[in-house]
Amino acid sequence: MILIKNVSYYIDNNLNVHENCDILIEKVENSEIKLTTGKNLLEKLNLNQNDLKIISGEKKCAIPGLYNAHTHVPMTLLRGIADDMILQDWLNQKIWPNEAKLNKNDVYYGSLLGCLEMLRFGVTSFNEMYFFSEEILKATKEIGLNAQVSYPIIDFGTPEEQSIDKLLTSAESFVKNNVGEKNIKVGIAPHAPYTCSEETYQKCSEISNDYNVNMHTHVSETRYEVVELENKIGMRPVEYLEKIGVLNEKLHAAHCVWITKDEAKKLAKNNAKVLHCPTSNMKLASGGVMPLFELLEYGADISVGTDGPASNNNLDILKEMKMTSLLHKAHRWDPTVAGIDTVLKMGINSESIEIKNNDIILIDLDSAHLRPFNNIKSNIVYSAFGNDVDTVIVGGNILLENKKYKFSETFISNIYKNIQKITEKFE
Amino acid sequence: MILIKNVSYYIDNNLNVHENCDILIEKVENSEIKLTTGKNLLEKLNLNQNDLKIISGEKKCAIPGLYNAHTHVPMTLLRGIADDMILQDWLNQKIWPNEAKLNKNDVYYGSLLGCLEMLRFGVTSFNEMYFFSEEILKATKEIGLNAQVSYPIIDFGTPEEQSIDKLLTSAESFVKNNVGEKNIKVGIAPHAPYTCSEETYQKCSEISNDYNVNMHTHVSETRYEVVELENKIGMRPVEYLEKIGVLNEKLHAAHCVWITKDEAKKLAKNNAKVLHCPTSNMKLASGGVMPLFELLEYGADISVGTDGPASNNNLDILKEMKMTSLLHKAHRWDPTVAGIDTVLKMGINSESIEIKNNDIILIDLDSAHLRPFNNIKSNIVYSAFGNDVDTVIVGGNILLENKKYKFSETFISNIYKNIQKITEKFE
Repeated sequence: MILIKNVSYYIDNNLNVHENCDILIEKVENSEIKLTTGKNLLEKLNLNQNDLKIISGEKKCAIPGLYNAHTHVPMTLLRGIADDMILQDWLNQKIWPNEAKLNKNDVYYGSLLGCLEMLRFGVTSFNEMYFFSEEILKATKEIGLNAQVSYPIIDFGTPEEQSIDKLLTSAESFVKNNVGEKNIKVGIAPHAPYTCSEETYQKCSEISNDYNVNMHTHVSETRYEVVELENKIGMRPVEYLEKIGVLNEKLHAAHCVWITKDEAKKLAKNNAKVLHCPTSNMKLASGGVMPLFELLEYGADISVGTDGPASNNNLDILKEMKMTSLLHKAHRWDPTVAGIDTVLKMGINSESIEIKNNDIILIDLDSAHLRPFNNIKSNIVYSAFGNDVDTVIVGGNILLENKKYKFSETFISNIYKNIQKITEKFE
Repeated sequence: MILIKNVSYYIDNNLNVHENCDILIEKVENSEIKLTTGKNLLEKLNLNQNDLKIISGEKKCAIPGLYNAHTHVPMTLLRGIADDMILQDWLNQKIWPNEAKLNKNDVYYGSLLGCLEMLRFGVTSFNEMYFFSEEILKATKEIGLNAQVSYPIIDFGTPEEQSIDKLLTSAESFVKNNVGEKNIKVGIAPHAPYTCSEETYQKCSEISNDYNVNMHTHVSETRYEVVELENKIGMRPVEYLEKIGVLNEKLHAAHCVWITKDEAKKLAKNNAKVLHCPTSNMKLASGGVMPLFELLEYGADISVGTDGPASNNNLDILKEMKMTSLLHKAHRWDPTVAGIDTVLKMGINSESIEIKNNDIILIDLDSAHLRPFNNIKSNIVYSAFGNDVDTVIVGGNILLENKKYKFSETFISNIYKNIQKITEKFE
């Protein structure tokens, strides 16, 4: 049991703010986590101090663990390798040629690095899509985060498998072998309507249905792909996904920046999950802006993600919440949209991958930039950075305390060394 | 003398990158600072270790001190007091009524807090405009930063002085008394064309000329003020400032978001300084976007600022450089604009207030989110946060080392305590 004593502020899952209270974190049956909040819990619940790890909450703000709704974590390896380039050059000249050089081991280390970054920033669960998924899963378990790891499918192959048939077989094995995991969900990820045929989507959908796992895909990230699909089949991407029968509560749709009001309505009505990546969309100059206002109006489930670190270049959800707010205010010439509660909800929404958010992170308030405390929620959303996170408790386990990882320095420096070595082969 | 030994990377004022070198920081005559860079300087220059403070540069990146081009530092007090509100409500209901309650002492503490925040984030010089300027100057000296502090003038008065005549007299005294300072320039700040008459601008211009100090003003931040001026006198703000004779190299023009190509050309041609505040413009939903591309084309002097912490809500120039890049890429649907070097230049441009940038800050690279080192400039611009700054050396004095202030904990906690007490009177 962990007792956070006298935390200055606690913003709970319903975004209610509690002041100067304790939080008790208990593992109960089925390794479920029970959270109890109140004043003087030590005395009130007559707790045995021998069973307790006590953490001081003074000058700290507790919030639920952050959720990164769309990312490609091993792309930490490619951070900074290509910036300020137009999308096609970025992909053709830098990203794809270098991704082709990555092996299993590289992806493993890239995943470890990404998990360490997210842990440092209080991101306790994430929604992932990248090749060598087994390695990502292994690294995620090793660091101790929650995730949904989906096996990526592209018709012309990935660096893992060249043929679509082999990819689908491997995907099914991956799902089958790992579907029982508790805090790491697996899934299948047809890349996008412009890289996967209708048949591919159908086969992915079968696997999704057979094993009751989610699908994760890219939707309407660029104008080009939308126009291309319209020219080819006379339908826009969301309409197409509905028509081929995969637009449902299992579908996680990343980006959705070039969608119409009608497509927004379809996403909401079919309970698809919408994954918003404001920084990446801005940095790659995708042009469109996800219609947040309309999606919210229709009741869509929306979360916020970083996308891969090659187009962000961080895995920091605190910053992504602020970016969401800024982007939509600027886009609509209306500062009242994408307010504090709206973006906070989008940043802790691990329920969207069916992972209950009972993780707790503590943010260190003892800094000039987080004072004064006129409105603690504002300080968290508009003034805090990832590295203000002080303590991270995932599934009742303390993985970061006083800004230090629970891992040995050797473990960390070995990861850093391997990472730097991998980059030597990049061009 | 300070010797930074074996710094992993050093990005100099010309944005050249040096690897694994030493940096020697010497105070020479007139307390000028001399920087020497090279390998093994200890041996090469036969330095006496007794005169030297040696700092390890390992796993660190040195860059010039950051410059905050437009801010209202005491507004730290109002951080978080009002978010997600339309500009007029924000001003009328929250900012102005609470500013009216601020006294000299409050502004002094607000300034100390802001200076501590900037110091923590490696901001070594800033361009300031707020009432009770004497207090800001005092706080800035106490913390040890460089600044240009301009005395604000508004026709209907400020919380410091109610009448415009008194304001102008006080402004002149302020300038006269402090014009000799070396690292803190003073200036005069007519607030904006919609709050200051032509006569006021002329009188400010006289003071500016008499004492050879700069002017600092707001220009075209909102559509409303532009349309209002056009309706009243048939001119747009930059045209107007030119006509009344104040558009020159002494003028620091903040925002400039609703300007035409022709106005951009006028700003550049007259060597006025353009102060870009992307986060604040986005958060207040000003709508317009400063025409960076055109201003650069015409050769304008542009720097980046945070604006006040009530509309940002940070004083972090590292983050503001990234925001500049993201905003312009998104705005123009072109990822090649506002690239790394462009925004770096805008972030270290203290020359724009005639303060030579010989400050050095060290950024701690030993974090997951700053690895690998594919391109160190990218890591600094796109991945680093203010609180990755480890060491700050201003004018040859170490003000922050190992992320700790050189001030006593009592000094800091006393500031925090006073700040929180001041907020009790806010409504």
